[in-house]
Amino acid sequence: MGEFEFDADTCLSGEGPEFAASLPEDWGGAPGVNGGFMLALCTRALARALPFPDPLVVSGFFLRPGSPGPAQVSTEVIRAGKTTAFGEAALWRDGKQVLRITAAFTDLAQAAERPGSPGHAFSAGRVPSLPPPEECFGFEPGTVRGVSIASHFDYRIPAAPGWLTGQPTGDPRYEFWMRFRDGRPADLLALPLIVDAAPPAVLELGIASTTVELTVYLRARPAPGWLACRTWTSYVGGGYHEEDVEVWDSAGTLVAQSRQLALILG
Amino acid sequence: MGEFEFDADTCLSGEGPEFAASLPEDWGGAPGVNGGFMLALCTRALARALPFPDPLVVSGFFLRPGSPGPAQVSTEVIRAGKTTAFGEAALWRDGKQVLRITAAFTDLAQAAERPGSPGHAFSAGRVPSLPPPEECFGFEPGTVRGVSIASHFDYRIPAAPGWLTGQPTGDPRYEFWMRFRDGRPADLLALPLIVDAAPPAVLELGIASTTVELTVYLRARPAPGWLACRTWTSYVGGGYHEEDVEVWDSAGTLVAQSRQLALILG
Repeated sequence: MGEFEFDADTCLSGEGPEFAASLPEDWGGAPGVNGGFMLALCTRALARALPFPDPLVVSGFFLRPGSPGPAQVSTEVIRAGKTTAFGEAALWRDGKQVLRITAAFTDLAQAAERPGSPGHAFSAGRVPSLPPPEECFGFEPGTVRGVSIASHFDYRIPAAPGWLTGQPTGDPRYEFWMRFRDGRPADLLALPLIVDAAPPAVLELGIASTTVELTVYLRARPAPGWLACRTWTSYVGGGYHEEDVEVWDSAGTLVAQSRQLALILG
Repeated sequence: MGEFEFDADTCLSGEGPEFAASLPEDWGGAPGVNGGFMLALCTRALARALPFPDPLVVSGFFLRPGSPGPAQVSTEVIRAGKTTAFGEAALWRDGKQVLRITAAFTDLAQAAERPGSPGHAFSAGRVPSLPPPEECFGFEPGTVRGVSIASHFDYRIPAAPGWLTGQPTGDPRYEFWMRFRDGRPADLLALPLIVDAAPPAVLELGIASTTVELTVYLRARPAPGWLACRTWTSYVGGGYHEEDVEVWDSAGTLVAQSRQLALILG
C-alpha cells in the first residue's frame, strides 16, 4: 500500500531493532507533529519487530512535542509468548526522546477461534447513528489553521460543530464519519492515528490541551469503507481531562476504543 | 503508614534504580498474585525514582502470571520535565519479567493551580448512587476460593451479585463501596491496586479472563473514607473484553478511572 500517503509517510528504513524515519511537515497538530501519527509510526516499527501481525493494545506517553524532520525509532521485544507478544518502542528526534510506547500484539483471527472465544459476545454500546455521509457537513482542508493532519482525512459530521462557528456548545461529545481522503482502507496499523486525528471534543468547552498519554485497544480488523466515530470527554478538572474515542467499521463492528489523558493549556 | 498491610507488603529495599521486593501469598487473584497489587508495587518503586509525588497515569502490561516469592523491581527515569516526569518499571520474578509499566507523575496540587486549570471543570458522570454501606451486602473474607486479595478489603454492594448466588445476571456492571479492611486510607499509590481488586463485572456473563493491559488515570487525591466504585464491561468479542472502573471518594470527587483489556479464558 506504498502508494498511499500514510504508508509513504510512516516508511521505516533499516532492519531493526532501530529504524530511521521522518516526521513530516504535513501531519501537524497544533503545535508539532500529531501524536496519533507518531503513535502509529512507533506501532508500525513494532509490527516489524514482533512475531504477530495485529496490534491489540498500544499505550504511548508523550514526552516532548515532535518537530518535523529526521527521526529514529528504537524497538525492544519484551516477550514473545504463544498467543501474545509485547514490545516497546521509542521515537527520537535530534537525540531527544519524544514518545515511548508499549504494545501487545497478537493474531486477532486466531484469538477469535480460541476455546471460549466464539461463545462470548456482548455489546452494551451501539454504532453511532448518523445520517449518510453525503448528507453531512464536511470540513474543507485548511479549515483549522496549522492542523495540517486534517488534510489527509475526509470528516463528515451531521452539523458544523459549535466550536467551528464560534459558539461552543458546552457539551464535549460528537459523532462523525471519517476516512482517509486518498482512499486508503483503514487497518489496525492506521487506527492508532485515526483515534487521535479528529478535533478534540473539549473544543466545545473552549479548552485547548496536550496529550500526556494515549491508550488504544484494537478490537477487530476493520472492514473497508467509512468509519463511524464517537468522541467524548466525561471529566474535566484539576488541570486535566480524559477523552474517549470509539471507532466502528462499515459492518457495524467496534474496531477501536481509545482513551487519552490531556493537560489543559493555560 | 508502615503499620498497614498494603504498606508493609509493598515495601521496597534498596536505594534504586533496582529494588528488592516480595510478592506475598495473600494478595492472590486466581491464579497468581493480583495484577493490581503488582501494578501498585511498581508504581511505588517509580515514586521513589521520580521527582514528583503523584502518579497521574500508569499503564501496565502483564507478561506472565506472578507467583509469590522474592522479586525485583527495576526502574528507569525516562524524562523529568518541569511539570511531569515519566518513568518505567519492570517487575522480575525468578529472572523472568512479569510486568512492565510506564507512568507519568506530577504534583496534582500544583497542577490544579496552573493558569487555565481552575476555570475548567466539567462532569458528565455522577458519583454512584448507593445505599449507606451498613445497609449493603458485604462479602465475607474467603467468599471466593483462592482470591486471597479479597481478605484485605471491605466490599459493600446493594445486593449479593448474581454470579455469587449462581445466577449471573447477563448484565456486566455493578456499583459498590470499598475500603481497606485495616483502616488504611486510600491514596494515589493504592488506587492502581484498588481498581483491580474487586470482582470483575464479566462474572455476570459467566466469563473468566486474564488481564493483558491495565491503564489507570489518577484524577485527584482521595479524601478519607469509603470509596464509591463503578465497574462495567461494554464490549466482549473476538476473545477479549475491556473493563472500566471509576472510583469516587467520600467527598464526591472522581479520583481514578481505569480500563483494562483482558483475554477470555477457555
